[in-house]
Amino acid sequence: MGKNTFIVIGGVAAGMSAASKIRTIDTDSQITVFQKNGYVSYIACGIPYFIEGKIPSSSKLVAYDAQFFKEKRDIDVHLHHEAVKIFPSAKTVLVRNAATGEEKEYSYNRLLISTGATPVLLPIKGHDFKGIFSVRLLEDGIAIQDYMAGKSPKRGLIIGAGSIGLEMAEAFSERGLSVTVVEKMPDILGSMDDEINEVVEEELNNKGVTLLKSMGIVEFVGDSSGVKRAVLENGEAIDTDIVIIGMGIKPNVEIARQAGIELGQTGAIRVDEHMRTNLPDIYSAGDCAEAYHLVLGRNVYMPLGTTANKQGRVAGENMAGGKARFSGIVGTSIFKIFDLEVGRTGLTEKEAKLEGKDYVANVIDQFSRAHYYPGATKIRVKLLAENKTGRILGAQMVGKEGVAKRLDVFATALSTKMTVRELANLDLSYAPPFAPVYDPILIAGNELLKKLAG
Amino acid sequence: MGKNTFIVIGGVAAGMSAASKIRTIDTDSQITVFQKNGYVSYIACGIPYFIEGKIPSSSKLVAYDAQFFKEKRDIDVHLHHEAVKIFPSAKTVLVRNAATGEEKEYSYNRLLISTGATPVLLPIKGHDFKGIFSVRLLEDGIAIQDYMAGKSPKRGLIIGAGSIGLEMAEAFSERGLSVTVVEKMPDILGSMDDEINEVVEEELNNKGVTLLKSMGIVEFVGDSSGVKRAVLENGEAIDTDIVIIGMGIKPNVEIARQAGIELGQTGAIRVDEHMRTNLPDIYSAGDCAEAYHLVLGRNVYMPLGTTANKQGRVAGENMAGGKARFSGIVGTSIFKIFDLEVGRTGLTEKEAKLEGKDYVANVIDQFSRAHYYPGATKIRVKLLAENKTGRILGAQMVGKEGVAKRLDVFATALSTKMTVRELANLDLSYAPPFAPVYDPILIAGNELLKKLAG
Repeated sequence: MGKNTFIVIGGVAAGMSAASKIRTIDTDSQITVFQKNGYVSYIACGIPYFIEGKIPSSSKLVAYDAQFFKEKRDIDVHLHHEAVKIFPSAKTVLVRNAATGEEKEYSYNRLLISTGATPVLLPIKGHDFKGIFSVRLLEDGIAIQDYMAGKSPKRGLIIGAGSIGLEMAEAFSERGLSVTVVEKMPDILGSMDDEINEVVEEELNNKGVTLLKSMGIVEFVGDSSGVKRAVLENGEAIDTDIVIIGMGIKPNVEIARQAGIELGQTGAIRVDEHMRTNLPDIYSAGDCAEAYHLVLGRNVYMPLGTTANKQGRVAGENMAGGKARFSGIVGTSIFKIFDLEVGRTGLTEKEAKLEGKDYVANVIDQFSRAHYYPGATKIRVKLLAENKTGRILGAQMVGKEGVAKRLDVFATALSTKMTVRELANLDLSYAPPFAPVYDPILIAGNELLKKLAG
Repeated sequence: MGKNTFIVIGGVAAGMSAASKIRTIDTDSQITVFQKNGYVSYIACGIPYFIEGKIPSSSKLVAYDAQFFKEKRDIDVHLHHEAVKIFPSAKTVLVRNAATGEEKEYSYNRLLISTGATPVLLPIKGHDFKGIFSVRLLEDGIAIQDYMAGKSPKRGLIIGAGSIGLEMAEAFSERGLSVTVVEKMPDILGSMDDEINEVVEEELNNKGVTLLKSMGIVEFVGDSSGVKRAVLENGEAIDTDIVIIGMGIKPNVEIARQAGIELGQTGAIRVDEHMRTNLPDIYSAGDCAEAYHLVLGRNVYMPLGTTANKQGRVAGENMAGGKARFSGIVGTSIFKIFDLEVGRTGLTEKEAKLEGKDYVANVIDQFSRAHYYPGATKIRVKLLAENKTGRILGAQMVGKEGVAKRLDVFATALSTKMTVRELANLDLSYAPPFAPVYDPILIAGNELLKKLAG
């Protein structure tokens, strides 16, 4: 038997994690990564901070480049190479070189589909004016930065009030732009609950960001120099010098679907806990794939960088003959908006309702440090638990400090199916600079206990 | 049957938590608290920050005063009243009024011993000069502040390099004193491991604090105006204007012992999970009592404010007829020393060795935020696990930010007897301002996994 041949389609978080993991196990194999665009292993989550100016150079957002992978890990990375078709029976992939247009077929023993996701578009009139951007590829970040350098925009328009949209609102605002965020839905931040959103909206307002909810855009107006204006559903128009489309992402599954790979109900690629698809020797991981949600007990589509990294590592280990298991997610996510940390894990109340859960929920506002210690500031915690069992269903937090890693206590509790009573009794760290004697986590637990049946 | 009569000996964290809890359940009862000194419900942990000047007034350290408890909760607080003897058969307590010297016997249906702890003394020649203080009572804090106001000390000497000693070293240093810390043992911070201590010692050094280890004090020299000098074991002397004795505390158990109440092997009062002593209708909680350690599986003496509060609440609920359970501790503690957060939960390696555990340990240094995000700084994490089972035994952390509440993830993991593998797969929060894509917690887990047998 000759050496193993591994092909990885898509070389960002999941793909390069997998390729690197394979290399540590199967030192003799041939590993080839095809990347549609010009960068591998870049950190998309950092783009808003690059725009904001907190990160001086886009190169800081490239963890490792193609040369590193070749020289240090003997992984062949082909940039600007798009995989166009998979032939599962032949175990080959047809790949197009974007520079030359040349197509070539490559054989694999095992294949990873880590094609990632693509921004949801807004295909309205004028959508192709210059100055209208998504925030997804490193190229997007560089293009935005270049456009701003050339235009010195005074006004920015963000379409979509999810976390990326709000991060970009912050970035523009910190760059001195007057910012408007337009959200089609009545609520910001997807299924985040109102008690959290109202704090976020207040922060946006305090920072001078205009937020329009339940409002669509019907047309962009501009000229050859770029976008000038967006026309709203109500006929009004917003003058703007730059537009960000932050309406979410959808998994890149076309190549998988055409190959007969099963998609889940979410539309993303269905994988088992070993990151296998339904076809032999074909794995998938990252933003194109589903992830098992431990609280819901089913696969969901919640594309995040942490999950992509972990799934990629698991896929790589198994492709190289291992038996690794991806333990699933609990739905943890966090972002910063101006001076606020905003996070969630598990289910929100909106989600618990949709799921038909019999739950109790409670909201508290408690200090991040001892109340008498300088810098103490209120954190809002919303906690949900299943009524009958007392099992925690989810937590949301917002505050100026101490949210991000406190949230991880809830995430840990969710992973172990902890009850509210157990949570309320945890032996958490206390010292006046860091927490009140009863941490907000414990108070959230104690207060929710009072609402539990029995 | 008449109304219930509850007596609480000692009115700080445990005592006032219990009294308040009793009142919420048994609204009709008579609740009497005897407090030896002049304050109840004060926050001893805040004293170093009061000295440092971060808290403007000692009144900020009194959560509620005696009048509040009388008026709002109908709890009789007798300040400057010392319980001198318990008569378990008669169910009475003999109490001395410190002002008048008068003694009086009080009857109880149920009694709580929450007598707290007393600083370990250094009974050497000159120990009673003015300017030599412990840091325990609110009166201590006020006396130190007054002495400093009168003396404008230039030099401070701290005896004992535990967390209180180091917090006081910071307080003095921030007040402009030149500070020396003398520690009798070869190590600072008790059983904290060397990899953590070396970071702390470097910080002390950076901030100009002199640390002498393995060094005892044999005599204080001074005059009627106060202490002037401390003579070391090696014959050398250290000039100083003020001395803090921070050599730890011992439980106040004399009144309990005399009443026939059983002490544990630690010397503190033995209690069960309902906070009952061996004598009927007598409970104990707080710094005079033991606590069940979930990792060790036995009672320990680890007096901390959080535990005292929780134990007091459990004792109160049960004294009022409930069936509450104190779930135990995992040995979590944290403190700040200058720019560092230093914490531990579970066992240190020194402790694991003493316990004869078959363990693996690993130390990592990882960034608190994405490495490219401004303010990212390295956190050191030392993680221990049982070799055969992979069960986590303990974690220690030190760093400039992001330690305190990350530690709580380990504390939560310890409470649920989590394995390293489970820890390494947790779905923790990630965004560049708050964590790297693999949080230091996950990296600590992944690296330790590699060392585990099998």
